[in-house]
Amino acid sequence: MVSWVSHGCCTHDDKGLFVFSPPLARLIDAFQRLPGIGPKTAQRLAFFVLTQSSANVAEFSQALVEAREKIQPCSICHGLSASDPCEICIDPQRKRTELCVVPDARDVYALERTQVFQGMYQVLGGLISPLEGKGPDSLNLEQLTHRLQGLSVEHEGQDLSSLFPPLEEIILALPPSTEGDTTSLYLNRLLKDTPVKITRIAFGLPVGGDLEYADSMTLSLALQGRHEF
Amino acid sequence: MVSWVSHGCCTHDDKGLFVFSPPLARLIDAFQRLPGIGPKTAQRLAFFVLTQSSANVAEFSQALVEAREKIQPCSICHGLSASDPCEICIDPQRKRTELCVVPDARDVYALERTQVFQGMYQVLGGLISPLEGKGPDSLNLEQLTHRLQGLSVEHEGQDLSSLFPPLEEIILALPPSTEGDTTSLYLNRLLKDTPVKITRIAFGLPVGGDLEYADSMTLSLALQGRHEF
Repeated sequence: MVSWVSHGCCTHDDKGLFVFSPPLARLIDAFQRLPGIGPKTAQRLAFFVLTQSSANVAEFSQALVEAREKIQPCSICHGLSASDPCEICIDPQRKRTELCVVPDARDVYALERTQVFQGMYQVLGGLISPLEGKGPDSLNLEQLTHRLQGLSVEHEGQDLSSLFPPLEEIILALPPSTEGDTTSLYLNRLLKDTPVKITRIAFGLPVGGDLEYADSMTLSLALQGRHEF
Repeated sequence: MVSWVSHGCCTHDDKGLFVFSPPLARLIDAFQRLPGIGPKTAQRLAFFVLTQSSANVAEFSQALVEAREKIQPCSICHGLSASDPCEICIDPQRKRTELCVVPDARDVYALERTQVFQGMYQVLGGLISPLEGKGPDSLNLEQLTHRLQGLSVEHEGQDLSSLFPPLEEIILALPPSTEGDTTSLYLNRLLKDTPVKITRIAFGLPVGGDLEYADSMTLSLALQGRHEF
């Protein structure tokens, strides 16, 4: 139990050990909870904040709360969006018969940046991982099963079925890992009796990658996935 | 000029290029302004924030504003503190005749953690750097010159001179760099006619350091600073 000897910026606990004062300690602690931020970096960031203008800090503070409040998962595709349903789910310009299945909402942005895919998305919210106790039940599969069963897609009582024609292709954009492979196999089995074409994205040497430095798993996937030139 | 086609989470500008929606873009931008945080890390942190509970995000947001508001430079030593004067400046238990000169407020914490130094501090707020146009005028030297001239130390009309006896030793805890050396030389010249003992911290091999991997500048400083065993 730490008792605060004073309310200065640096202070000492009852054992005489050095501790930061509460406002600074709380900020360092908040930064440290972010992924990939260790105690040293958290301190550096906190001290940087102290050197900034109050207006800048207030802006940062507001941006945090605002983003958290306004950006929510879309109730149809589970992608993150400031509107519900998200713009992709209600955009009539997109190829609404193609559905790309991704593990995480961040993956939607990665794919959108390519400007290659023009279809719809389904964010699984994770992958099947028996080691972590995550089974198929933990995945967001309602849109998929709903649409494949020919059921209507509704949002707040409004029937959106006209926006959701029967699917022609489901692209599994899942990574080449144990979890990604397990989830792909599960989805393939789940969907095998439907007339929908199931595809999985290609794996192989990345652009700029060197044969010499590629790991053997990647190289063997690249060989297996070879195509006629 | 970007025109927002929609207010979804990911959207496209008038050239059809991918852009984040305003609340998310603002948060990513805020993270990116932190030192050492690039666009990829900023995105990762912003998405992490979206996955956190509103209470956690509100706490982070509040910690930012609170630390910025409450932690201010001490008007005497220029160290950062939630009180003014800071606890070190008014602590009668410390060796008030020893003054340690450091470049930055962060350095006070680094030294306090060692629990070796029990004296007072003076934060310069930088170092002399002709290349960056920073001369001696940019340094916080009032406490030093005030005390050396035998002038009274005041804070908000209160005379604190009894807390500030004549100095016996000034320790220059400035780094072994061009700027650190220039500043040390300047301070040494400024103080040479006073009866105060001027010392500079030792430079050499760090604990855990290997002779083999030490750079030659460090090794030559280690040799120059050798002492009888």
